Amino acid sequence: MPAKSSSRTSATSSRRTILRLKVIPWERIISPFPSERGGSMSSLGIDIGGANLKVASKDGWEIIYFPMWREAERLEGKLREIAEKYSTAKAGVVMTAELADFFKSRAEGVEFIAKACKKAFEDVRFLDVEGNLKSDIDNPENFAASNWVASCRFLLEEAYRNFLFVDMGSTTTDIIPVTSKIEAAKTDFERLKRGELIYFGVLRTPVFYVLKEFEGAPLCPEFFAITADVFVTTGDIKEEDYSCDTPDGKGRSREECMRRLARTVCSDLEELGEEKVKELALEAKWAMIDRLSEVIEHKSKIYGLKTVFACGIGEFLIAEACEEAGAECRLISELYGDYSKLFPAYAMLKLVEQH
Amino acid sequence: MPAKSSSRTSATSSRRTILRLKVIPWERIISPFPSERGGSMSSLGIDIGGANLKVASKDGWEIIYFPMWREAERLEGKLREIAEKYSTAKAGVVMTAELADFFKSRAEGVEFIAKACKKAFEDVRFLDVEGNLKSDIDNPENFAASNWVASCRFLLEEAYRNFLFVDMGSTTTDIIPVTSKIEAAKTDFERLKRGELIYFGVLRTPVFYVLKEFEGAPLCPEFFAITADVFVTTGDIKEEDYSCDTPDGKGRSREECMRRLARTVCSDLEELGEEKVKELALEAKWAMIDRLSEVIEHKSKIYGLKTVFACGIGEFLIAEACEEAGAECRLISELYGDYSKLFPAYAMLKLVEQH
Repeated sequence: MPAKSSSRTSATSSRRTILRLKVIPWERIISPFPSERGGSMSSLGIDIGGANLKVASKDGWEIIYFPMWREAERLEGKLREIAEKYSTAKAGVVMTAELADFFKSRAEGVEFIAKACKKAFEDVRFLDVEGNLKSDIDNPENFAASNWVASCRFLLEEAYRNFLFVDMGSTTTDIIPVTSKIEAAKTDFERLKRGELIYFGVLRTPVFYVLKEFEGAPLCPEFFAITADVFVTTGDIKEEDYSCDTPDGKGRSREECMRRLARTVCSDLEELGEEKVKELALEAKWAMIDRLSEVIEHKSKIYGLKTVFACGIGEFLIAEACEEAGAECRLISELYGDYSKLFPAYAMLKLVEQH
Repeated sequence: MPAKSSSRTSATSSRRTILRLKVIPWERIISPFPSERGGSMSSLGIDIGGANLKVASKDGWEIIYFPMWREAERLEGKLREIAEKYSTAKAGVVMTAELADFFKSRAEGVEFIAKACKKAFEDVRFLDVEGNLKSDIDNPENFAASNWVASCRFLLEEAYRNFLFVDMGSTTTDIIPVTSKIEAAKTDFERLKRGELIYFGVLRTPVFYVLKEFEGAPLCPEFFAITADVFVTTGDIKEEDYSCDTPDGKGRSREECMRRLARTVCSDLEELGEEKVKELALEAKWAMIDRLSEVIEHKSKIYGLKTVFACGIGEFLIAEACEEAGAECRLISELYGDYSKLFPAYAMLKLVEQH
């Protein structure tokens, strides 16, 4: 295991040099939009996720950590704040937060979220999984988990035709084949089966889900450490990028992340040692890359696709998986800048402006 | 999958009839000890776990849900209450709670817990992993995760010689080979590697850890459902046996458990349907039995053991795993009654009384 990890480490860094990846840092809440704006009322694109509210306007954007499972009742107020801050009454909305266990069913979740949006904005358009913009929720099931539809539909409108769209966020990864039309299944359950939804991301995923064992010891299924701890330890993200709660409520320093990682094998930093903890982190990272590259290879083959569009805060990891899979990787951040981090919200902004 | 599940279901129920398992219900807090007791001061055996405080006295016992990761600061007070309630100043203590992420390291955890015990009781004996009763913590590492040592040492003193001791609790399962002496490794990390510690139990384990996929859909690594939801759904435990927090803070009824289970594949009860959710629960149960029987078979073979001593609130599942592994199963509940549910605490009580 150590041999494998270290060879991979050096392989990775040399690859990095070749690729010259621009790994763009992100902040917990970033609002680079100007304080003074022109008179005409602009729209917003909003992606209401289970852990984050993502807001895109033509002048800037923000990602607000908003864990729906405990904050749902504050949603309407939060959306009102957003409407006021951007002085806009028009929004295009996609969501995945309906899966949060605050709701009894996803249909209940969709309706709850839609109601909050309608109260906060005068004019709201929701996107269904068929790609239709609608002012009313006719069938709630059709509006669940539609954020990847927004991204793909927007890219199609930008005249891209054949590509594999991969979006890795804090919690989940969408892998959507597009051949002039969206080829993915419509529900999360079906997408899970087809590998079009991998339920892992670069921040919130429990480490024991991505790495089954370390040095022959199965990782413990306690909420001890998450992928944010992995990527702070590997140096792929910075302390300030760790934009969700820590499992133990403690800090986000590299040492604190390593302490959490050691605990996943019922050990601690003193017993396991820093070097071993770093190895554990690298193995977790590579387990994610391996899984992702496998699906990228498989989907590219089935649909005859050559190009991967990579976006989300996990863009850096998708690029490494493409390298592994031998696929051409185009970074959405190079095409649309920081909007890559909240691409479905940006896509909704553009779709609402254009339609 | 469904065929496998249903054949297994009927196989299980026929086996049940043959075995005539006495599945004993347990309550969240049970205090069947008499209100009036004799004059001589009796001892207590206490097992301080990560999720529960287990207290055994000669007159009765209790299991108190006490999640250490958020209650640690209240430990001393809780132990004082216990000392007062049982009017005793003497206690034998084993622990596993030092792994809770309230503590920076396990050594810190052991010392914190020992200090609380010393303040609450006049006379405390701690058991180290070598089986020594000590009044002081000389080397903290030696006192971490020693509860299974108490059980095995007590059984050896009861003149049992060659056996596999299996204790399944709410969170973890110990599988300890004994051949006139304890053969297991001394640390949790080593025991994980050797399969002597399986980090799953009948209440608190996230379902996605025991069951990787259902109908080809990988289960989501969110804290959506736990094994308590599985066993309420299969009917193996009752609603009132669900003695830990629910993942969503909602109720413990069978319907609520099934709702949580459906969410593990990004679905809900309405989409998946009751029959499929029951299948999911059975597959999770059988995944645990398969894993456990595999280890029982392997360890029995290596050490030439014929008898398994099964205890803990998961006794019923160990019995099924023994049936699967072709091993003879002796239920601790048939030998020591309800103390089976907190056998390390009972063992400490007996060890402290005898030494």
